[in-house]
Amino acid sequence: MNLADTAIRRIIEHSLEEDVGPGDVTTQVTIPENHPANACFFAKEDFVLAGIEVARMVFNQLDPRINMELKFCDGSQVAAGKIVAKVFGPARSILAGERVALNLLQRMSGIATKTAGLVEMVRGLPVRLADTRKTMPGLRVLDRYAVRVGGGINHRFGLFDAVLIKDNHIKAAGGIKIAVEMARKNISHTQKIEVEVEDLEQVAEALETGAEIIMFDNMSVELMARAVKIVNKKALTEASGGITEKNIREVAETGVDVISLGALTHSVKAVDISLKFF
Amino acid sequence: MNLADTAIRRIIEHSLEEDVGPGDVTTQVTIPENHPANACFFAKEDFVLAGIEVARMVFNQLDPRINMELKFCDGSQVAAGKIVAKVFGPARSILAGERVALNLLQRMSGIATKTAGLVEMVRGLPVRLADTRKTMPGLRVLDRYAVRVGGGINHRFGLFDAVLIKDNHIKAAGGIKIAVEMARKNISHTQKIEVEVEDLEQVAEALETGAEIIMFDNMSVELMARAVKIVNKKALTEASGGITEKNIREVAETGVDVISLGALTHSVKAVDISLKFF
Amino acid sequence: MNLADTAIRRIIEHSLEEDVGPGDVTTQVTIPENHPANACFFAKEDFVLAGIEVARMVFNQLDPRINMELKFCDGSQVAAGKIVAKVFGPARSILAGERVALNLLQRMSGIATKTAGLVEMVRGLPVRLADTRKTMPGLRVLDRYAVRVGGGINHRFGLFDAVLIKDNHIKAAGGIKIAVEMARKNISHTQKIEVEVEDLEQVAEALETGAEIIMFDNMSVELMARAVKIVNKKALTEASGGITEKNIREVAETGVDVISLGALTHSVKAVDISLKFF
Amino acid sequence: MNLADTAIRRIIEHSLEEDVGPGDVTTQVTIPENHPANACFFAKEDFVLAGIEVARMVFNQLDPRINMELKFCDGSQVAAGKIVAKVFGPARSILAGERVALNLLQRMSGIATKTAGLVEMVRGLPVRLADTRKTMPGLRVLDRYAVRVGGGINHRFGLFDAVLIKDNHIKAAGGIKIAVEMARKNISHTQKIEVEVEDLEQVAEALETGAEIIMFDNMSVELMARAVKIVNKKALTEASGGITEKNIREVAETGVDVISLGALTHSVKAVDISLKFF
Amino acid sequence: MNLADTAIRRIIEHSLEEDVGPGDVTTQVTIPENHPANACFFAKEDFVLAGIEVARMVFNQLDPRINMELKFCDGSQVAAGKIVAKVFGPARSILAGERVALNLLQRMSGIATKTAGLVEMVRGLPVRLADTRKTMPGLRVLDRYAVRVGGGINHRFGLFDAVLIKDNHIKAAGGIKIAVEMARKNISHTQKIEVEVEDLEQVAEALETGAEIIMFDNMSVELMARAVKIVNKKALTEASGGITEKNIREVAETGVDVISLGALTHSVKAVDISLKFF
Amino acid sequence: MNLADTAIRRIIEHSLEEDVGPGDVTTQVTIPENHPANACFFAKEDFVLAGIEVARMVFNQLDPRINMELKFCDGSQVAAGKIVAKVFGPARSILAGERVALNLLQRMSGIATKTAGLVEMVRGLPVRLADTRKTMPGLRVLDRYAVRVGGGINHRFGLFDAVLIKDNHIKAAGGIKIAVEMARKNISHTQKIEVEVEDLEQVAEALETGAEIIMFDNMSVELMARAVKIVNKKALTEASGGITEKNIREVAETGVDVISLGALTHSVKAVDISLKFF
Repeated sequence: MNLADTAIRRIIEHSLEEDVGPGDVTTQVTIPENHPANACFFAKEDFVLAGIEVARMVFNQLDPRINMELKFCDGSQVAAGKIVAKVFGPARSILAGERVALNLLQRMSGIATKTAGLVEMVRGLPVRLADTRKTMPGLRVLDRYAVRVGGGINHRFGLFDAVLIKDNHIKAAGGIKIAVEMARKNISHTQKIEVEVEDLEQVAEALETGAEIIMFDNMSVELMARAVKIVNKKALTEASGGITEKNIREVAETGVDVISLGALTHSVKAVDISLKFF
Repeated sequence: MNLADTAIRRIIEHSLEEDVGPGDVTTQVTIPENHPANACFFAKEDFVLAGIEVARMVFNQLDPRINMELKFCDGSQVAAGKIVAKVFGPARSILAGERVALNLLQRMSGIATKTAGLVEMVRGLPVRLADTRKTMPGLRVLDRYAVRVGGGINHRFGLFDAVLIKDNHIKAAGGIKIAVEMARKNISHTQKIEVEVEDLEQVAEALETGAEIIMFDNMSVELMARAVKIVNKKALTEASGGITEKNIREVAETGVDVISLGALTHSVKAVDISLKFF
Repeated sequence: MNLADTAIRRIIEHSLEEDVGPGDVTTQVTIPENHPANACFFAKEDFVLAGIEVARMVFNQLDPRINMELKFCDGSQVAAGKIVAKVFGPARSILAGERVALNLLQRMSGIATKTAGLVEMVRGLPVRLADTRKTMPGLRVLDRYAVRVGGGINHRFGLFDAVLIKDNHIKAAGGIKIAVEMARKNISHTQKIEVEVEDLEQVAEALETGAEIIMFDNMSVELMARAVKIVNKKALTEASGGITEKNIREVAETGVDVISLGALTHSVKAVDISLKFF
Repeated sequence: MNLADTAIRRIIEHSLEEDVGPGDVTTQVTIPENHPANACFFAKEDFVLAGIEVARMVFNQLDPRINMELKFCDGSQVAAGKIVAKVFGPARSILAGERVALNLLQRMSGIATKTAGLVEMVRGLPVRLADTRKTMPGLRVLDRYAVRVGGGINHRFGLFDAVLIKDNHIKAAGGIKIAVEMARKNISHTQKIEVEVEDLEQVAEALETGAEIIMFDNMSVELMARAVKIVNKKALTEASGGITEKNIREVAETGVDVISLGALTHSVKAVDISLKFF
Repeated sequence: MNLADTAIRRIIEHSLEEDVGPGDVTTQVTIPENHPANACFFAKEDFVLAGIEVARMVFNQLDPRINMELKFCDGSQVAAGKIVAKVFGPARSILAGERVALNLLQRMSGIATKTAGLVEMVRGLPVRLADTRKTMPGLRVLDRYAVRVGGGINHRFGLFDAVLIKDNHIKAAGGIKIAVEMARKNISHTQKIEVEVEDLEQVAEALETGAEIIMFDNMSVELMARAVKIVNKKALTEASGGITEKNIREVAETGVDVISLGALTHSVKAVDISLKFF
Repeated sequence: MNLADTAIRRIIEHSLEEDVGPGDVTTQVTIPENHPANACFFAKEDFVLAGIEVARMVFNQLDPRINMELKFCDGSQVAAGKIVAKVFGPARSILAGERVALNLLQRMSGIATKTAGLVEMVRGLPVRLADTRKTMPGLRVLDRYAVRVGGGINHRFGLFDAVLIKDNHIKAAGGIKIAVEMARKNISHTQKIEVEVEDLEQVAEALETGAEIIMFDNMSVELMARAVKIVNKKALTEASGGITEKNIREVAETGVDVISLGALTHSVKAVDISLKFF
C-alpha cells in the first residue's frame, strides 16, 4: 500500500464528509475537547487482515495527533480474540473516525478472507484467482488491493486499461477475427487483447487472431478442459461465470491459467472487527 | 427517489470516472460511433427491485440520448426471468455505463430484498426495522434509500443529525444523567437524544433523563422484554446488536419499537441481474 | 470548534481562492519573500468574539509558518481597544490571508454579538433563542457556530435533518393529521416532526398528532400565550415570525420554549475589527 | 448577468448541497412526486431588485422543469406588495430550492438597495461609488454584481487584478517611490497601480510616481479637498474609510472621483421578499 | 472521440474557469446580451485537423445555444485558406469561448500534424509510432487522441496501466530476471511487461524472462538492428530515445515494431488557426 | 514563486492523479517500500531555469519525506552538464513524481529560455515583451510565471481583469468611441482599457477616447512607427501579431512600449533536463 496514494486520500475524505458532515454532535457535547483515549481494533472472528493502513490514514486525515500501533500487518491471518492495532489520541477524533475506519477495514478484510479461502481451495494447482469490475462503485482501488492481499490478482482496472472483446463487440464488429484486428490496429502496443468465447469454434477463432487472453464464459468443466488443450499455452486462458466454492477446484483442474470471480467483491461478508475503548 | 438529487449525481459521476476513465478502449475500436443497441435488464433470480431510477440516471449522465422503458418500479417484487427495464441508445454508451449501473442496481436490490425478507419475518408485530451507519462509504444515500424501498426505516444519517450517547460518551461525561443534560443544553431542539444502555439500571437512568430513544445494546431477549416494560412507551425503544434471522421474531415480540441491523447494509448479497443485448 | 472539520477547511480554501486567485500581485512586488511581520487583531468596538479559531485556520491553511497567540477565546466579551490576538509570520502570507480572516471573523462576531444581545433581553425566562436556515449560502456551518457562541441554539441544519411541516405541505397532504402520519411512517425514528400552525384550531390538531414541536407562525402575543397553555408542555413550542428587539421579551413571557429569529443571521452587522501591523 | 457563468453555477451547487443535503425529508413524505405548484416572489417592502436571474438559475439547476415568469428585471425599483416573479413547476423542487433562492435574492437586493440609496445621496456630483473586498466569502461575484445593479462600480476583484499599495507595503519597500517603481517594473502593463495615502506629503509623493489612482485613507473632508486640488486630475482619486450616509455628500463635494464603502457589502440588510404559494 | 467523456468535460470546465473567471468584462460592456454572431475557424496554414469536436464541446459547455457546422472532421488534411467549421450563436458566448477552443484545437492539430509527418517518413515499413508520457500535465487524454488522429498509437496511459521496467527498477530489484519475475507474480494477467535495455546482453536476458515488449533505449541503429534479430519476433520491440526526423527512417529500417517519440507531444508547434467573425 | 499558492497545488494534484492514477504498478512490484534513492536533475543543454520550486512542490505533495537541494534557482542561466538540483527520499515516491516534475520543469524552462532569448534581441531599447492568453489550458499561472522569470511581463490574466476592445466589440458597439465610453462607465476604476487598432485613423480615434493602451494589430513596421508618434506617450502602445525573431528588433525600434507574443507560450520547445539516479 502506497501511503502517498491520492485516490485513497480522496475516498477517505468523501467518506468522512458523508459520516461526520457538519460535526459529531454527540461527542462535541459530551466529551471535553482534548480528552485522550486509548482504543484497540479487536478481532471478533478469524480473518485475513486487509486495510489496516487505510484505517490509519482515516484517523490521520481527520486528526494528525492520532497514533496507531499495529499488532498485525495486512495479509496476516488474525485469530478471534486478538488485538489488531492500538489507537491513541483525542477521544473526539477517534470517535469521529471510528465508523469510517471500521466500514472500510471490515469490507477489505472480508474480501481478503474470501479470496484467501478460495485460493486455499485450489492450492497446488498452477492457477491464479482474479477479481472483476464487480466492485463497489468508488472503492475499486481498495477492493482490488484487498484481493491482492488475499492472494489473488487483479483483472483490468476499468474499461480503459485492457481490451476485452465480448459477444456484443463481436456482433457489432462482424466476427472475432475482424474485432481483434480492429483492436490491434488501434490500441496501444502495451495493451493486451482478451476475447470472451462460448464454444470451441470460437476458441479456435480467437486463438488464430493472436489474442493474448481467451476467456471461457460459462463453459462446462468438460468443455473448458478441451478448450485448454486447444489453446495449448499459446494464450493465457481464463475461466469466468458461474464459479463457486463448489466447483472451483474442478474448474482449476481443467488447467486454466486464471479463474475470475465477481463474488470476490460483489457480495462481501464484512469481517467482525470492533473498536474497543479501554 | 428525487431525480434532482445532487448527491446521487455526484456518486454516479465518480463511479463512471472510476470505471470508464479515459475511455472504453474495447468499444471505441470495435463498435461504430452511432451504432444503436437495444438491451434489457433481466432478472436471474427473485428479488425486490431498488435502484432502477439510479440506473437510468447512470445512462442519462453518460449520454442523454439513451432512453429507458421501465417494466417495474422500485419496490416491486420481481420474479426470475422477468425483464426489469429496456434500454435503447448508442451501443457505445450503453456498454460504457453497463457495469456501473449493474453494480449499483444489484447492491441496492440486494439491500431491499434482504430488508423485505426481515420485515416479512416480523409481520404483524408493531416493530420497525432500521439500518445503521454500517453502509458502504460514499454510497450511504443509496443504501438508505434501498432500506426504505425494502420496507425499513433509516437510523440517523451520520454523526451530525441526532445524538447517540454510547458507553464512551457516558464514561467521559461522568454518567448518563450528566451526558444527557449536557447534550440537551447544547443541541438543537429539533434533534432527539438516544442513549445506549446495557442493563436495567441504565434503562431506568436513561428514562429519567427524558431521552427520546433508549437503545438496548446486545441485551438478551428476556432482559429486553423487562426493559420494554420499564420504559412503558415513555420513550422509543430500539434493539441493537446480535440480531439475525434466527432471533429477530423473538426480539420483535419483546415489544421494542425499532430493531436496527447493521447486516442490512454491511454484508450485502448482490442480486443477480444482467444486462442482455438483443 | 473542531479543528479537524473538513467543512470549514473547504470554506477557507474557496474563500482564499476567490480573494488571492493567481496571487497577491502587490505584495509579491513590494515585499521580500521571507520578510517577517507582527500584527494584531484589534477591537474597534465592543463585541462578543466568535471565529478566532477560524481566523487561525485561514492563516494556517495559507502558510503553516504563521503562528497566532490568542488573547481572547470565542465567547469572550471583548472591549473596544483590546487586542484580540497576535499574528506572527511571513508578511506576504499574513497580508494574503488578512481579508478572508477578517471577513469571516467580523461576520461571525457580529452574529454572536447580536445573539448575545437578544439572549440578554430574555434573561431569567426559560426560553432559548434559535437560528433559522436564513444563513449565508455556503457559510451555514460558521453562522450556526457563531449563534451557539452567542448563547443561542441551532434549528435544523437543512431540509434533511428534521421534518418541518408548513402550510404548503399541509395543503398538499390534505391536512395536518394526514401530513404528520405520512411523515411518521416514513422518516427515521431519530427525527422529530415540527408543525407550523397559525391558529388555535391548528394547535389542537397538531398536538393531537403527537408532533414533537409546534411552531407558532406570526401569531400575536395574546394568541401565543393561549396556544402555550393548550400545548401544556406536551410538545415543545416555538415562536417564529416578526420577532424583534421590541417584542422579544413579551414573546418570551408567553412561555414558549424556543424563539427562532432569521435576523440572527440574515442581516448581520459586521463587527469592527482590524488587523494592525506593528 | 451572464447565464453561462460557471462561477455562479458552482455557488448555487454548493448552496443547494448545503441546504438540501441528502434530501428534503418533509417534502418527500408529504407531497406526491409530480404535484404541481404555482408560487410567486412577493415584495414585502420597497427595494431595488438584484438577483432574480440567480433565483431562476437556482430552480433550473435543481430541476429544469421549473419555469419562471419575471415581472421585474434586475435594477427595477419594486414597491411593497408587488409580485416580482412567478414560479411554476413540481412542488417538491420549488420547495427544495426556495430557501437558497431567497437567501441569495434577499442579500443581493439588499446590496443593490443600499447602493442605490447612497448613489441617490450624491446625485448631481461627478463621483462614483465603489465596493471593496469586504464581501461575503464565496459570494464575491454576486455581491459585486448587486453593487453594479444598484448603480455603483466595482473595485478590484481580489488581490490579483490590480496593485494597491498600502502602508505595510510602503514600509516594507522603503517608501512610496520605491514601492511604485518595483510594482511598475514587475506587473502587467494592463494593471493599474493605486497608492493609499494619509497626508498631503504622501499625496504629492504618490502623484510624482505616476500612480494611476490615489486613495485618501480616513482623511478629513478638509484635507481631502486639498488633496483633490493637489492631484488636479493627474490621477484618479478615491476616498476610503469612515464614510457613512451622514458624510457621503460632503465627501463627494470634495471632488474625489470615487468613494469606496465596505458597508455596501459587509453589513447587508436582507430585503424582505417571500415566496408565496397560491 | 466520445462526446460523453467526463474527462474532457472536466478539462474544458477548468480551462474556461481559468480564462473567463468571474466574466468577460469587455464583452459584457460592449456587446448587447443576445447579439448574434457568425464566425468560422479558418486555416492559416496546411495541417492535419484534430480537436474540432473538442472545440464544439467548449462552446456547448459554455452556452448550449451555440451551434457548429463542421466542414472537416478530425483526421482531415486541411489546406491553408480553408474554412474548418462555422460557429453560430450569441456573440458574447462565442467570444468567451474563443481562446480556450483555439488553444486546444491548435495544440491538438499541431500534434496530429507532427505525428502524420513522421508517419509519412516511415511509410511502407512495418513500424508504428507511439507517444510517451511527455504530455502536457492535465491534457494527456487530448494529447493521446491527437496522436491517434495523426496515425500514431499510444504508449501506456500512465504509471498504472502497464509495467515498464527501467534501469532503476532493475538495480533496486537486483537484475532483469528477478524484476520481471516479481512483476509477473503480482500484476494483473491483463497487463504487459516491458523492459528497457541498453545492450545485447540485456536484450537476451529480457527475452528469456518472457517480457512482452523490449525497449531499446538510446541504442545506435547498428546495435538496434542486431537486437531486433536476437528478439526475432518473440517479443514486441520498441525503439526509444534520440529519435528525430533525421534518423527515424533508419531506425524504422532496423525492423523494430514501435518507435516512441517524446517529441510528438513535449514540444508542440501550435497550428495557425483563427476564429474569424463575419 | 509563492509556495502557498493553492492554484499551483491544484495543478500538481491533477497532474499526479493523471499520471499515477491508481498507483505506479512497476515500482510497487520491483522496489521495496522504503528503498532510498538519490537523484539529480541534470541539464542536457543550456537554458534559463524556471519551475524548480514547482518540481519541489510535486515531490512534496506526493511524499513529504522527499527533500531537494537546489544548485540553481529560477532565473539562473544553466549550462549543459550542470546538476540543477539533488533529490533524496523513498525511491518509489521519486519515481512516481519524476514525469510530472520533468514535464512541468521542461516546459517552464522552455518558456523562460525562449523569453530570455527574445529579451536579449531587444536589449538597450525601452520596450518590454509580454505574453498573451495563448497559454496551455489549465497551466496559465505557471506559463505566466515562466515568462516573468525569462524577463518578460504578463498581459492580462484572462477575460476578467482588463478590458481589451477588439474589432468584434467595436463593430457590435458601433465604433471605438462608443465602445470605450460604454466600458469606462461600467468597469472598475481599477481596470485599464486597451483598444486594438488597425490603421492610423483608428489610432487617433482610440487616443481621443483616453484608452490607457493602444494595441497595433498586425501593422507594418512603418505604419507602427507613425502610430507611435501619433500616440506620443499619451497612452501605452503595444505591438501584436506576426512578430518573430526576425523582425522583433525592428518592431522594438518603432518605439512601442510593449511587444506581445503568443509564441512565448503557444509553441514551447521543452528544455532537455533529465532526472538521473546515482
